[in-house]
Amino acid sequence: MARSARSKRSAGKDGRSNRAAIGTRRGASAESLAKKQREISISEFFTKNRHLLGFDNRRKALLTAVKEAVDNSLDACEEAGVPADVTVEIQAVKKDERYRVIVEDNGPGIVRTQVPRIFGQLLYGSKFHTLKQARGQQGIGISAAGMYGQLTTGKPVVITSRTSPRRPALRYQVAINTAKNRPEVSREEEVDWPAKHGTRVEIELEARYQRGRQSVDEYLKQTSIANPHVDIRFLAPDGREEHHTRVTKELPDEPLEIRPHPYGVELGLLIKMLKETKARALGSFLKQDFSRVGAKVAQDICEKAGLDYKSRPTRIARTEADRLIQAIREVKIMAPPANCIVPIGEDLLLKSLRSDIPEAAFYTACTRSPAVYRGNPFQVEAGLAYGGALPADDLARVFRFANRVPLLYQPGACLITRSLIQTDWKNYGLAQARGALPTGPLVVMVHVASVWVPFTSESKEAIADYTEIFKEIRLAIQECGRRLRIFVNRRRREADAEKKRSYIEQYIPHIGDALQEILGLSDRVRSQTVTNLKVILEKSRKMG
Amino acid sequence: MARSARSKRSAGKDGRSNRAAIGTRRGASAESLAKKQREISISEFFTKNRHLLGFDNRRKALLTAVKEAVDNSLDACEEAGVPADVTVEIQAVKKDERYRVIVEDNGPGIVRTQVPRIFGQLLYGSKFHTLKQARGQQGIGISAAGMYGQLTTGKPVVITSRTSPRRPALRYQVAINTAKNRPEVSREEEVDWPAKHGTRVEIELEARYQRGRQSVDEYLKQTSIANPHVDIRFLAPDGREEHHTRVTKELPDEPLEIRPHPYGVELGLLIKMLKETKARALGSFLKQDFSRVGAKVAQDICEKAGLDYKSRPTRIARTEADRLIQAIREVKIMAPPANCIVPIGEDLLLKSLRSDIPEAAFYTACTRSPAVYRGNPFQVEAGLAYGGALPADDLARVFRFANRVPLLYQPGACLITRSLIQTDWKNYGLAQARGALPTGPLVVMVHVASVWVPFTSESKEAIADYTEIFKEIRLAIQECGRRLRIFVNRRRREADAEKKRSYIEQYIPHIGDALQEILGLSDRVRSQTVTNLKVILEKSRKMG
Repeated sequence: MARSARSKRSAGKDGRSNRAAIGTRRGASAESLAKKQREISISEFFTKNRHLLGFDNRRKALLTAVKEAVDNSLDACEEAGVPADVTVEIQAVKKDERYRVIVEDNGPGIVRTQVPRIFGQLLYGSKFHTLKQARGQQGIGISAAGMYGQLTTGKPVVITSRTSPRRPALRYQVAINTAKNRPEVSREEEVDWPAKHGTRVEIELEARYQRGRQSVDEYLKQTSIANPHVDIRFLAPDGREEHHTRVTKELPDEPLEIRPHPYGVELGLLIKMLKETKARALGSFLKQDFSRVGAKVAQDICEKAGLDYKSRPTRIARTEADRLIQAIREVKIMAPPANCIVPIGEDLLLKSLRSDIPEAAFYTACTRSPAVYRGNPFQVEAGLAYGGALPADDLARVFRFANRVPLLYQPGACLITRSLIQTDWKNYGLAQARGALPTGPLVVMVHVASVWVPFTSESKEAIADYTEIFKEIRLAIQECGRRLRIFVNRRRREADAEKKRSYIEQYIPHIGDALQEILGLSDRVRSQTVTNLKVILEKSRKMG
Repeated sequence: MARSARSKRSAGKDGRSNRAAIGTRRGASAESLAKKQREISISEFFTKNRHLLGFDNRRKALLTAVKEAVDNSLDACEEAGVPADVTVEIQAVKKDERYRVIVEDNGPGIVRTQVPRIFGQLLYGSKFHTLKQARGQQGIGISAAGMYGQLTTGKPVVITSRTSPRRPALRYQVAINTAKNRPEVSREEEVDWPAKHGTRVEIELEARYQRGRQSVDEYLKQTSIANPHVDIRFLAPDGREEHHTRVTKELPDEPLEIRPHPYGVELGLLIKMLKETKARALGSFLKQDFSRVGAKVAQDICEKAGLDYKSRPTRIARTEADRLIQAIREVKIMAPPANCIVPIGEDLLLKSLRSDIPEAAFYTACTRSPAVYRGNPFQVEAGLAYGGALPADDLARVFRFANRVPLLYQPGACLITRSLIQTDWKNYGLAQARGALPTGPLVVMVHVASVWVPFTSESKEAIADYTEIFKEIRLAIQECGRRLRIFVNRRRREADAEKKRSYIEQYIPHIGDALQEILGLSDRVRSQTVTNLKVILEKSRKMG
């Protein structure tokens, strides 16, 4: 049936004209297929796949553009040791259709030669080859936002930047040549700009502004929770001004860059490193190019692999490299240093929960020790807010963070959500249907910090499924859950006690009346007896 | 507290040596930051992000490698009009650690010049720039599998291919230079090969073989369900041989290539098309380069945009292009032709469900009419199997397909899952907890076919969130759900009737006995009365 309907359709007018125009491929030969093979530019790829970058609909596009610009600003300010002042402005060019996003920071600015490539080339950046915690990591975000703006409005990105009060501020118009993935600067000029140093980015794009969950407002609020040292001003298109002031002037500790850890290195990468190293001996290569490898460990590895400590790294063959990998797995090596990651910390997490969710009755937070997946250090934190005026009949609400950036989309794809669903919340006194989040007056917050967060897509909305990270999230949640259980149980006991007490208070006077009648007591003796009875029963209740 | 623990850690031995080696970035200037900026090769990007390609763990890596090779084989055979015979072999090189995947087909083969780039370069392929349904679309899959094999075992991909019985079979060893994203051919030779034409791919990789859900076995089984015209032989590493024979020799209709539809074109793309067109006049550009634009529609668009039909496309300015976009949105244009997509069809879907899930009691399937998202035609099909011996206490099981390819991972990230969770299954007589799939003896199958399936990541495991696709899935499910409700209700009525009937049969003899006693009836009259009563009650039961 479906088949015959199809045939009719293909015989339609347009069907025929298509056949004529492009020719049927049925019976295609290797040669005719070969003619269709082409290189695909990374920009073309992401233009067609722009949902991978977070631009699948207008509302999300607005959020993604703001997010990429703000993430860049916060990273730059932290690297420069400047407490960030960030202003986000959204202007409506045409309501529900076209907006202008303007993000300005007081960071170190960007030097002239770098501006075009940072904003007009995908896969260009400073953090990809670096092992330390940062918001950006891929060299895609801001150029992708520019590319989307250009795709939907035809307008270039406008960047203003000043690197020092002694130098002029420069303004650039940068477009991206998608076929070549190369920037095109259409204009560059000196401008008057009051800022001493910093960067201002303006992108016009097809977008829609709407408040609520998954909005720019929500993103900035959550950003401020995870970044108590940052000051954010938001000028909304409806004229409102929101100000998230900093809670602390102290910057978070600086994450330090580390070298790769041997346990995370695979054969292909090892071969590449052996080819490219500056070290002249295998032993010194191991010591210099890896984290946590001292003379002793290097010697052990060489010995176990049956290789000379002094052999030239460039001369190591594939099979020898394979033996090295085996040897590395057998030698005990200290976990990588954790100073490349900086958690928010239990104290600040608790403070944030209390200030953000003041209506709850119970708060707890837990920062786990650092751990390692595929050689990458990472650290998990979790927090709970429970009870009070939180809605008791809804599914628990989840706040997800990666490297201090709130994740607002793709909860279903995220390891954090899966960990929460697979936790048995009944253990902690909550209701939970199979395959669902727990139900109850609960907000859960999870933060994953790492030198390389494995996201499920370039838009960085969800964390991919690594067993080691799953385990740490589970442990953090369980720790919080146990504390929650104590609270819930105490509450339950108190409620039970309250019930018992009310029974006692309710019935004892009647017992008194009955006794008075049976035993012929005076009013004084009766009320004395009632009081005594209360005290005794109260004691026995407490003992039980 | 967390803060001071941190400081201690950063002062540790390795912390200090790192500081010395790389230098602290705090107080970084625009200049020092600029020095860190670098271009990132697409291969480096995907090496680090290999979970995006489906290589996050060993078991999944094995499945992904098989899948990419099989998808390519099926596409090639269909394009050549050959009923595909595919052999998949997995050899254990070292159990649970290293395997060799070998996929061989009877397709048209690959010409010599194309082999290196198809297998040794990411983002190279024939389908990216083509608008018609195919399994492959990105030019990433098979080269990514090779890259992963190389990364984990250091070994190149081995390809054997023959394009005609009159030409020799050639065998190649292809590696990928990840820094440049370019192929390196380490060996090329003529070989004896019995096949007249076809391609054989061998990849050695770190992997793990395990049966069950999300396994190669499951993938091949589901592939055979969605591709009844294909013959698949599987040689498992444990020595088993599975054979999925074809159910029909008839190939599915051939999807035809179409041009882009005006409704899906955005400003940026329009500007690019105007620059690159061969047409000399705006009107003929619209007619030639788009689907469903005839002379009348082209004229209407030009008129509404206030542009001359004869103006040179290359001279159209940005603001004029913007007016063209507005005009396109105002002119009524026929939906794009649907012969670029080929659904499985209700009949074959039902057949597949019946043969794959023989234990159910009720089956239904629904193929929707084609629809359009972002200018891309797509079509949704759904099927249900219910009742019988299916487990009644589990969550419903979901089979997801995109362009006839089973999706085994990332269900939580998939629009199909979201559509199912947001459907109110209580309407159809099933139990369902909030935020969860329905519970009951139910299998749901959904197939999305499109010229461009929007996946949530390059590994193509889940479908991204487009409103138009969501709606169509909902409608398909609802259609099936309504039929299910009729079945469930009938079953319920039958069960109720059965209950009533059993009551009647249980109690009437007692009533007979009582009547006999009261009225002094003879045995004959009593049993006559009982029979009459039964008939009357049975009637009234049916009437009610």
